[in-house]
Amino acid sequence: MRYLTGEPHQLPGNRASLADYQPQHFLFNVEAGVATLTLNRPERKNPLTFDSYAELRDLFRALAYATEVKAIVVTGAGENFCSGGDVHDIIGPLTRLDMPGLLAFTRMTGDLVKAMRACPQPVVAAIDGICAGAGAILALASDIRYGTARSKTAFLFTRVGLAGCDMGACALLPRVIGQGRAAELLYTGRSLGGEEAERWGFFNRLCPPETVLQDAQAFAAALAAGPTFAHGMTKKMLQQEWNMGVDEAIEAEAQAQAICMATNDFHRAYHAFVAKEKPQFEGD
Amino acid sequence: MRYLTGEPHQLPGNRASLADYQPQHFLFNVEAGVATLTLNRPERKNPLTFDSYAELRDLFRALAYATEVKAIVVTGAGENFCSGGDVHDIIGPLTRLDMPGLLAFTRMTGDLVKAMRACPQPVVAAIDGICAGAGAILALASDIRYGTARSKTAFLFTRVGLAGCDMGACALLPRVIGQGRAAELLYTGRSLGGEEAERWGFFNRLCPPETVLQDAQAFAAALAAGPTFAHGMTKKMLQQEWNMGVDEAIEAEAQAQAICMATNDFHRAYHAFVAKEKPQFEGD
Amino acid sequence: MRYLTGEPHQLPGNRASLADYQPQHFLFNVEAGVATLTLNRPERKNPLTFDSYAELRDLFRALAYATEVKAIVVTGAGENFCSGGDVHDIIGPLTRLDMPGLLAFTRMTGDLVKAMRACPQPVVAAIDGICAGAGAILALASDIRYGTARSKTAFLFTRVGLAGCDMGACALLPRVIGQGRAAELLYTGRSLGGEEAERWGFFNRLCPPETVLQDAQAFAAALAAGPTFAHGMTKKMLQQEWNMGVDEAIEAEAQAQAICMATNDFHRAYHAFVAKEKPQFEGD
Repeated sequence: MRYLTGEPHQLPGNRASLADYQPQHFLFNVEAGVATLTLNRPERKNPLTFDSYAELRDLFRALAYATEVKAIVVTGAGENFCSGGDVHDIIGPLTRLDMPGLLAFTRMTGDLVKAMRACPQPVVAAIDGICAGAGAILALASDIRYGTARSKTAFLFTRVGLAGCDMGACALLPRVIGQGRAAELLYTGRSLGGEEAERWGFFNRLCPPETVLQDAQAFAAALAAGPTFAHGMTKKMLQQEWNMGVDEAIEAEAQAQAICMATNDFHRAYHAFVAKEKPQFEGD
Repeated sequence: MRYLTGEPHQLPGNRASLADYQPQHFLFNVEAGVATLTLNRPERKNPLTFDSYAELRDLFRALAYATEVKAIVVTGAGENFCSGGDVHDIIGPLTRLDMPGLLAFTRMTGDLVKAMRACPQPVVAAIDGICAGAGAILALASDIRYGTARSKTAFLFTRVGLAGCDMGACALLPRVIGQGRAAELLYTGRSLGGEEAERWGFFNRLCPPETVLQDAQAFAAALAAGPTFAHGMTKKMLQQEWNMGVDEAIEAEAQAQAICMATNDFHRAYHAFVAKEKPQFEGD
Repeated sequence: MRYLTGEPHQLPGNRASLADYQPQHFLFNVEAGVATLTLNRPERKNPLTFDSYAELRDLFRALAYATEVKAIVVTGAGENFCSGGDVHDIIGPLTRLDMPGLLAFTRMTGDLVKAMRACPQPVVAAIDGICAGAGAILALASDIRYGTARSKTAFLFTRVGLAGCDMGACALLPRVIGQGRAAELLYTGRSLGGEEAERWGFFNRLCPPETVLQDAQAFAAALAAGPTFAHGMTKKMLQQEWNMGVDEAIEAEAQAQAICMATNDFHRAYHAFVAKEKPQFEGD
């Protein structure tokens, strides 16, 4: 930003390096600004546990300050995305919790979605095979979804006696695929196939299983090479304007875009255009 | 619910049995937890009248407390769904009302939609033939819509000189089919064919005319055999989160799902899973 | 309206005649109640300038009181809709503005969208060729969009280092095509082809390039021959209910529709129906 003096991004308490971060419950690596997060218990289709939920939440919170990460890919190992909360590791223990304990759990899982929506990096999900329960929510909480024809996405909370309102699904899903289709998926827990998911706008693209991860990474890399400060503003405003009136949203965008017009990336784009060159964005 | 003592659902003033209810202006029967409501003036394509509006409103209000009804099917007799407000019975008298009288009418019709959205049972519309005006709104106010290829859905208020903003259409329709397509239907009043309605997400499924009602009833029966307390929470939260911010919706779902985790159905599902059996839900 | 005495539409300060209006920066003509606004710098694909933005904003503000205009068509000359803000005329100067100057610009462009949403006439965009940047926003801010298969719509703000949140795009686009598809277009700035735009609900109809303008004008003429006071109410309520709860929207519609039931057009429709004639609407 032109209006800040000194080295950018060196604000105390406002920086986290995740280059060498080694999580305990999944894989994480950063290459050329693109972080790839891989759920990695393939023998059980990559279920979530209490500990992996918490570590995911903490990672996405840290990503808000990880300025070297420009885009994030979320995927699963072994031809499945994520089977959701494990029955033995999560559902069993939940049946023995009291109400404060239950609420602490549902708030923890909700905090993961809040953190995914609050970090400035676009999140691209690469989805093959099973994408179920909380796994379907991780996909839904992403900005962009690449999937395969054979993938099966199921909001299957109802199958374990629960409601479809889990981690924001009743708010997020209707805005992605429409209220009627969302209601059907949430009431029934049925699997949504890949072709249908693309037709409904849940998937942005269908990819072959062999390339879905690299296609998602290539998409993320293209975003990472773009004006990433502006991308973060796009993500923020998609969230911020969720329940504003139209006129209030227009004023909010006038302010947000005026901020972006004060960035170096905007100036770089103009000067590159005048010089008939391709702009080189740096995210400031 | 585990936290309530005594016989469930015996709260004074909080119960209504509709098993033997015989309405005056339409058919109503309950079988195995599924209520089927049939508009039944087939010789005139099942129009609505002042009295049938009021009786429908009162029935849906009573359904909020009718714990033996787990899901609702709405349909029309004689190969048509509903032709809307009758020109002679409704539109003529409306032209002679003063403003308080007009507002009393529009509030009554709106109260029907409010009651359909407020009762905990999912509402499944089975739509064949004509589905017009207030009939289209009854379909829209349902949770799930099964239709036929030959059906014609028309928000035709504009054809009688009125606005598309009737009984919530300007709020509900854009969320189901998108803002641009909703605007076209509401400005023009044109008929939406069945194939197009499925493609746009207005219909959840296209069925043959011979089976659309029984297909809708089978769908409702499957819901009725599920965790119906949780279904009611799904419906409530789809409504409740309509204009919340994303973070507020996530907190609301954390609370709502924690409540569902304290139900017997959630425990039944877990124990059935451990025993490798199919869970038997009871809606408590 | 029955409740007003005297000549309708003669309220002081509440009337503007645009019949003879000759704008400086685009073409404008009114025929049989349909205004056609043509962006007309075809040799540069109809870009916008500071002055044309301002004149468009002022025109749409005046249209709120131009009772002889019943519907509006927006189009571009020479087989393109609009290439957006001109790089030399707009982007260059913006790089030299201070923050109050930048905000004055983004507010001016936002005010154009506010004015398009606030005028009572439905706006129909006829889109061929390039529809980019602020041009894509003009299309998005319209009520109805007719396009061609060869057209290319691109929200390309990111290409010049800016965010997708421009003139309300993060609020409007997700409601038209869904949150996931909107995110992709806004993050990438990629071109949306005509077929895809129709499939996603961005275009209401695909037309041949030779007829897209006259098809849009015919659609607008049909609306202009309808109950235009009621159409204005439909447009107002689609805007007004954007972020209301469902119950509040239903009450708002009860009031709005009661107003429409007090118009002469509603009475005309009833009497025409009884006489088995086609109603002649007059917009009062």
